Amino acid sequence: MSQDRLEKLNQLPLRENLRGISPYGAPQINVPIQLNVNENTHPMPQVVVEAITEAVREAASGLNRYPDREFVALRQDLARYLGHGLEEENLWAANGSNEVLQQILQAFGGPGRSLLSFPPTYSMYPLLASGTTTDYLAGYRDADYSLSAESASQQVREHAPSVVFLCSPNNPTGTALDLDVVRAVYEAGESSNTMVVVDEAYAEFALEGTESALTLLPGRQRLIITRTMSKAFALAGARLGYLAAAPEVVDALRLVRLPYHLSAVTQATARAALAHSGALLENVEDIKRQRDRIVVELRAMGLVPAVSDSNFVTFGGLRQPHAVFEALLEGGVIIRDNGLPGHLRVTAGTEAENTAFLDGLRAYLAAHPDALTA
Amino acid sequence: MSQDRLEKLNQLPLRENLRGISPYGAPQINVPIQLNVNENTHPMPQVVVEAITEAVREAASGLNRYPDREFVALRQDLARYLGHGLEEENLWAANGSNEVLQQILQAFGGPGRSLLSFPPTYSMYPLLASGTTTDYLAGYRDADYSLSAESASQQVREHAPSVVFLCSPNNPTGTALDLDVVRAVYEAGESSNTMVVVDEAYAEFALEGTESALTLLPGRQRLIITRTMSKAFALAGARLGYLAAAPEVVDALRLVRLPYHLSAVTQATARAALAHSGALLENVEDIKRQRDRIVVELRAMGLVPAVSDSNFVTFGGLRQPHAVFEALLEGGVIIRDNGLPGHLRVTAGTEAENTAFLDGLRAYLAAHPDALTA
Repeated sequence: MSQDRLEKLNQLPLRENLRGISPYGAPQINVPIQLNVNENTHPMPQVVVEAITEAVREAASGLNRYPDREFVALRQDLARYLGHGLEEENLWAANGSNEVLQQILQAFGGPGRSLLSFPPTYSMYPLLASGTTTDYLAGYRDADYSLSAESASQQVREHAPSVVFLCSPNNPTGTALDLDVVRAVYEAGESSNTMVVVDEAYAEFALEGTESALTLLPGRQRLIITRTMSKAFALAGARLGYLAAAPEVVDALRLVRLPYHLSAVTQATARAALAHSGALLENVEDIKRQRDRIVVELRAMGLVPAVSDSNFVTFGGLRQPHAVFEALLEGGVIIRDNGLPGHLRVTAGTEAENTAFLDGLRAYLAAHPDALTA
Repeated sequence: MSQDRLEKLNQLPLRENLRGISPYGAPQINVPIQLNVNENTHPMPQVVVEAITEAVREAASGLNRYPDREFVALRQDLARYLGHGLEEENLWAANGSNEVLQQILQAFGGPGRSLLSFPPTYSMYPLLASGTTTDYLAGYRDADYSLSAESASQQVREHAPSVVFLCSPNNPTGTALDLDVVRAVYEAGESSNTMVVVDEAYAEFALEGTESALTLLPGRQRLIITRTMSKAFALAGARLGYLAAAPEVVDALRLVRLPYHLSAVTQATARAALAHSGALLENVEDIKRQRDRIVVELRAMGLVPAVSDSNFVTFGGLRQPHAVFEALLEGGVIIRDNGLPGHLRVTAGTEAENTAFLDGLRAYLAAHPDALTA
């Protein structure tokens, strides 16, 4: 922002906690290969493009009317997709999981209340706390970025937060939490009546044997599982986040949601994609194979990739990660520097995109023999 | 809500200010003639349906990517539509003007700050204050629901609110504010650095000679004009609210908006409709003629319609307005009882819809000779 604009902004009666901060957002840079924001880079299957187009055509003639405020048909479709005995009354959705999380903080956080999460984790959490004037508590992880049931539950007992966000698989590390951690955090939050949110944005990319926290919902009134259609369903552009929880949690969110927050066009688009989950989940399988290939090839280069249950890989072992990031960008490949010492993060793209990334990285390492720490 | 669900909701750590409230929303009742929520009841022109469909088809293949976070093309189109020398940097948009207003309160309201508005007015204002934990101050109007420059500015000086919402044309009364009121409120708010928001959701329906507060923007840094595509553009189902203000106001909102809050599908839909503003504004002219007809016919029945600059008419003179509402509903016509003593509100629909409403009302009055107060 220019000095002039900043001075004018400072004349406005902006809230004190917003002064001096910058808007959230990864740079939207136009380079040929974009592996920086964990998008599903597989082109949308043509059959889904057609289905979305037809669904919107049908919705368009009725756009003069407000949409179904309860988006009943979409909630039914989402319940059917998730399974686990969930029904419409367990489901809720909003414009991206960011809005779902914001609504959770509006209902259960806010002034005089607190949100605990465990950095490094999804960088929106403190911003969502700030936007809802909820106190943000930064917990800690072990040196390898893992989070044990013992450590997590001890931190919950210590802080007695109003809300805990557990990101699983965690972003940016990519690794899923053991369900023991979720169980322990839930139990530790009993005396403080803490809401426990498991953000499973990347759940569909989990390794075989990784279980969803959806299996823990029965009998746990304070547990919320959030999901998104941005990743597995390749719908980042359509903004559809959702959650599964006890029906009374949904009742609570209804008190803070803006009426008609989910447009008829969004509802139609999401339902059309859900009707083609087969084709879209085939791409997920391909992305998982690509992700595993990235892990294997990075290891062969002497790097240290984290276990990934997601569509991205965070890898360590670099002396100067930002120099590597810049060299790849120079070559037309953008990945992500999340500021973790020695680490970078790459989204698993298509086979050709990943080859370009891996080739670029291999060339860099060959040209810089001292690039690795080990 | 059932007693069982309410008990379960009360077990959750819901914020204290949300306990016992009901979700906002007019009943979504399926009757043949719906004149209750100020929708544009004219069918979407086929040419616009086709344009929206094609725009979404084009957007659909790229939905795997996040949308343009700055929605630059849409802001350019909105600036061009509004005119008044506005440019992209003066424009901002969100999912319905409710979200625009919520972002304004997140940036300039919040805990320890206050919002003043003048009931009877748009009933979402206190709920938006509650959702952002902003103190809500209910001002007052004259007995005929008008608001003078003197009264409004005196109330602003008295309360020194952080934000004022002026609804013009006002909902539910339908009458636009004289720009002298906006000028006086802005000046009265100078010492308290008060943000002044003029909610012009219905501006396109104004009577000849009614000026928009957009004309007041130059040189007024604390002034914000909000608009919506829900009414004149017949896009209630697509959720597109927007505002015009100084560029630094837009900078402030960027600090509280959720990243990528406006989907690519929403951006495409809104732009397609803006490209056909001609066809859509022709319907606005028809609705205005219908609105004026309703005013004339209500007067002829002995009722007292307010001056309407909007697509609805609020009329007084009824002994038992709710009985009239119920009788019309029985006949398949739903209008709105906003709880104003002696008053009801009706949306100006198509010619046939309005005829059904007026015939129904005439029949009721004929059968109930003591229905009128005068």
